[in-house]
Amino acid sequence: MKNQAQLIAYVDRLTGGTFRDLEGLLAGPLRGVFGAVHVLPFFHPIDGADAGFDPIDHTAVDPRLGSWDDVRALARQTDVMADVIVNHVSSRSSQFEDYLRCGASSRFAGMFLTYSHVFPHGAREADLLALHRLRPDLPFTTYRIAQEEVVLWTTFTREQIDIDVHHAEGRRYLDAVLTHVHQGGIRAIRLDAVGFAVKKAGTSCFMIPETFAFISEFTARAHALDIEVLVETHAHYLEQIRIARQVDWVYDFALPPLVLHALYTRDATPLTRWLDVRPRNAITVLDTHDGIGIRDAVDLLLPEELDALADTIHERSRHESREATGGAAHNVDVHQINCTFYDALGCRDEEYLIARALQCFVPGIPQVYYVGLLAGSNDMALLRRTGVGRDINRRYYAAGEVEQQLRRPVVQTLVSLLTLRNTHPAFGGAFTVTSTAPDCLAMEWRDGGAWARLDVRLTGMSASVTCSRTDADRRGEVAWSSGR
Amino acid sequence: MKNQAQLIAYVDRLTGGTFRDLEGLLAGPLRGVFGAVHVLPFFHPIDGADAGFDPIDHTAVDPRLGSWDDVRALARQTDVMADVIVNHVSSRSSQFEDYLRCGASSRFAGMFLTYSHVFPHGAREADLLALHRLRPDLPFTTYRIAQEEVVLWTTFTREQIDIDVHHAEGRRYLDAVLTHVHQGGIRAIRLDAVGFAVKKAGTSCFMIPETFAFISEFTARAHALDIEVLVETHAHYLEQIRIARQVDWVYDFALPPLVLHALYTRDATPLTRWLDVRPRNAITVLDTHDGIGIRDAVDLLLPEELDALADTIHERSRHESREATGGAAHNVDVHQINCTFYDALGCRDEEYLIARALQCFVPGIPQVYYVGLLAGSNDMALLRRTGVGRDINRRYYAAGEVEQQLRRPVVQTLVSLLTLRNTHPAFGGAFTVTSTAPDCLAMEWRDGGAWARLDVRLTGMSASVTCSRTDADRRGEVAWSSGR
Repeated sequence: MKNQAQLIAYVDRLTGGTFRDLEGLLAGPLRGVFGAVHVLPFFHPIDGADAGFDPIDHTAVDPRLGSWDDVRALARQTDVMADVIVNHVSSRSSQFEDYLRCGASSRFAGMFLTYSHVFPHGAREADLLALHRLRPDLPFTTYRIAQEEVVLWTTFTREQIDIDVHHAEGRRYLDAVLTHVHQGGIRAIRLDAVGFAVKKAGTSCFMIPETFAFISEFTARAHALDIEVLVETHAHYLEQIRIARQVDWVYDFALPPLVLHALYTRDATPLTRWLDVRPRNAITVLDTHDGIGIRDAVDLLLPEELDALADTIHERSRHESREATGGAAHNVDVHQINCTFYDALGCRDEEYLIARALQCFVPGIPQVYYVGLLAGSNDMALLRRTGVGRDINRRYYAAGEVEQQLRRPVVQTLVSLLTLRNTHPAFGGAFTVTSTAPDCLAMEWRDGGAWARLDVRLTGMSASVTCSRTDADRRGEVAWSSGR
Repeated sequence: MKNQAQLIAYVDRLTGGTFRDLEGLLAGPLRGVFGAVHVLPFFHPIDGADAGFDPIDHTAVDPRLGSWDDVRALARQTDVMADVIVNHVSSRSSQFEDYLRCGASSRFAGMFLTYSHVFPHGAREADLLALHRLRPDLPFTTYRIAQEEVVLWTTFTREQIDIDVHHAEGRRYLDAVLTHVHQGGIRAIRLDAVGFAVKKAGTSCFMIPETFAFISEFTARAHALDIEVLVETHAHYLEQIRIARQVDWVYDFALPPLVLHALYTRDATPLTRWLDVRPRNAITVLDTHDGIGIRDAVDLLLPEELDALADTIHERSRHESREATGGAAHNVDVHQINCTFYDALGCRDEEYLIARALQCFVPGIPQVYYVGLLAGSNDMALLRRTGVGRDINRRYYAAGEVEQQLRRPVVQTLVSLLTLRNTHPAFGGAFTVTSTAPDCLAMEWRDGGAWARLDVRLTGMSASVTCSRTDADRRGEVAWSSGR
């Protein structure tokens, strides 16, 4: 991937329109701001049980957004990343419907994981407790398949049926998806929820050695098509470090809670500690289409710090995030806090820009979620209409609304920070981080004579970015400054 | 129980107020209409995860409704039935909270059913499929109990923790509930969801022989306190007949779908067939706080007739019931159709009154749900606000609204039918039913010289109730007539 900022967005929710509108936006008002775009699921349909993450046909573009020709046109203009949903298919997919109809005689029968396939001798309580779980219930659903009842593995919702990635039809299915994505001109894929893809009795069924083997085999298939692979997992930080060594790209999901902790407590120590050990082959994020993963900072923050962090998000968001989180709304992962990042900072422009400056300087590819790009606030009306927790941060912008939001000073400054990140030569060089006090943090990039530096002083919330293209200019030019 | 009509109601939802208001209503505008009232859960709190069916303290009256003194005052005026929730307690009950805190060392540890308590050697897929289920997911939830994770049995929601009714603390708990209910002057209890109360590996865990043993033991304890017992189960009609032989009272849950079928298709044959075999120690209902149990008529109606019945309910209710049923809303039992009975008949007054007349004549104690008494229609606003399917038929009436609804002609006629049912001596005698054609049905009660007769002709929807107190009066007096 290019060493430039990436946009992550739903086509329709950002543009109010189609792939053509997204193309126009990136060529027009957002020209130069992003080196790539991660287009969230655009397959048929975009509005299933999990907002596109439960495709009925993973090889078809939802016609409301356009066609594969439109995807190719966008991909000619900028690098495009797409999701490949490897763990499950929709219960309304043709494959599952065939199984529902024909049962054991369906050629897709073995493509879906039954309970007894994994636990032929039954599961004891310890087996069930060993499972890595997102919610307190068990990841199984009963289905009546051609007159016979079976228990199927359903990690996410009842409508998302987990597949056996090792079964011939499972492999054929994923190969077909990869081929279509390749033909669509897509250069990178995000393996959604891949940590859950392989199940084995007596294990956590999450990122077990067999999962790594699957990822590495699938990555080889992608590489053969000149496609890079981003592995999406939420895991303990030590586990994330271990995973990062074995794959192309990972997310740095610990960053959002650590940045929030630094800004809330004015103590950057845990963040600095993380900067020393974190993987460099990371996509850095502050926000995504999912919630803020507090658990991603376990053991980087103390239990009481994690609790305080969650409380502060709720306070800063005037408790709106409470209505979207855990059992208060429909949620696949009850541990993530649903809130826009801007609201998590109480809509304080200066703190928000410091967070984004930190994201731009932390090594990796900064990815900015469309609501975050526009410093968007919680969409309580959408949350209430759908009852889906994550919808609080999945606003639908109408056509033309983006241009309007781009005129806000906070958004303009963010755009200028991203543009600097994309164009300054120093970011191709070496990185150093220094901290002279818990509330002080300095990050510097240097390549030959060129350098760029971020100084943050959390007490007083002052920050500045200075840079220069020549070594001769010792003091550099102030690209951005904030606070007292 | 008295051979008179019963009201079933939530105190607050019917009166907009307290037990005192309910007492006033029954002594005032509803005087003589009911011989008893089943007060839906009034324990602390009435607004938990399952509208009172998940008490935190099953021995305390929710103070928003009043006190045990108020319950006793009501019970002095009329017979009162109360729910005893035997299957589970709230996750916020003091017993469960103690277990959460102290784990294995809590004296309540064994009161809650773990997965391994029932399946010490694990559960195979066949074991899980054998379970009688209300929903397609499995009835288990993981909980962290004093640092250790366990899998607990949760038949209904995550917040309702199933108890081991055979454990000393489980027994003590149920005894305490029974004692309080007795001291509250209550004459009858409804054993809520008692079919699920006993679990045993390899069985359906529903109404197994051990469940009957428990019901009979618990009934003996109730009888010792002069309390009658109504067993709430939804089951196959043959099973219901078998259950009825072993308990005081059952519900006739097959009646609502059969009455709807008769009115929709103008063919009373399945209803007549049921009248020949059904238990007589039944509470007859058309509507309750739950949905319309289509499955209660399995094998009394053909599969295609059941499908047509469901479709017709949706059509008659202008598809409002669809929004409240199955996966379209939050539902504990996805098979029940949520809709007011009045809306299930498309708000057609004459058909509604024929249905109620049938209910009054079918042997058993007719119980009328408060929304049904007022011929209430679907509360779509409440459904949308809460997302709870059954709330479509759990309207909140404001203080004074009942008096207003009682002035509607359809409600006045229903009240006069109920009053006749309560006061005419014939209903203490012998019952006969005759059907000269599929669309014709006649039911007659006769005691000495007194008689009361319902004639229904479904073609043309004409019906009449005639009666007399003396044998001399052969033609009798027309108490009600409807249609052409």
